[in-house]
Amino acid sequence: MGGELHFIGIVEKASEEEAKVRIFSEYRSGLKGIKDFSHLIILYWCHLRDTEKERQTLRVFPRRHAVNVEKGVFACRSPSRPNPIGLCVVELLKAEDCILTVKGLDALEKSPIIDIKPYFPRADAVPNARVPEWTFHGPKT
Amino acid sequence: MGGELHFIGIVEKASEEEAKVRIFSEYRSGLKGIKDFSHLIILYWCHLRDTEKERQTLRVFPRRHAVNVEKGVFACRSPSRPNPIGLCVVELLKAEDCILTVKGLDALEKSPIIDIKPYFPRADAVPNARVPEWTFHGPKT
Repeated sequence: MGGELHFIGIVEKASEEEAKVRIFSEYRSGLKGIKDFSHLIILYWCHLRDTEKERQTLRVFPRRHAVNVEKGVFACRSPSRPNPIGLCVVELLKAEDCILTVKGLDALEKSPIIDIKPYFPRADAVPNARVPEWTFHGPKT
Repeated sequence: MGGELHFIGIVEKASEEEAKVRIFSEYRSGLKGIKDFSHLIILYWCHLRDTEKERQTLRVFPRRHAVNVEKGVFACRSPSRPNPIGLCVVELLKAEDCILTVKGLDALEKSPIIDIKPYFPRADAVPNARVPEWTFHGPKT
């Protein structure tokens, strides 16, 4: 039981400071109005984790966060999970033709893009959300 | 060119105040530690929009926001888009066995769940993100 994803673009240049995402030309029309937003939510496909073994992963040790206790994959942001979808909130630096230049993208080069959504602080920002102590160590996610 | 999604659960009860999401028992082990988070990001499949026609949609009028100008689907949160993925930040009220009780879920009943991620304010909260004026009208997304 499942759904079928179409890849709509690709991470052309990976960089924390200035990544480049190319939206395939047939989807370009969907970008109209995107410059009105300062931030986007990028959903990408963690293609290197799209293997049967990685997708059967349900428990991981979030070692990047110095955690030596097993966590469920739905309680951390591990790319090994039943559906290897990466989610990243980025700042939109530039939108030109099919290329989005963004800051803060944690995707690897060549990761397929599956969706781009504008960031709505009214719905998406919860600055005081409670998290466990381990999330403060290491990278942001 | 695309990927294959596995449905990991279902929206059993839709409600803005108190929705119920059931994670299928084979994925239950992935929920370990989820109670440590007050908020989650739920990715679901807008199953009623999973038709060829809806998935070819690249421009929409966001009429819920009283907008009569066409916007690209990547510049709004329309469920009609190339990959009908819904994204919603919710408050976790209760996690018992395979059932997550959450507040703020905008999914329809019977929507398949494709991923659950914990909300990390350090990465996900951008309270001052810039948005166009039309987003202030109507529903949150």
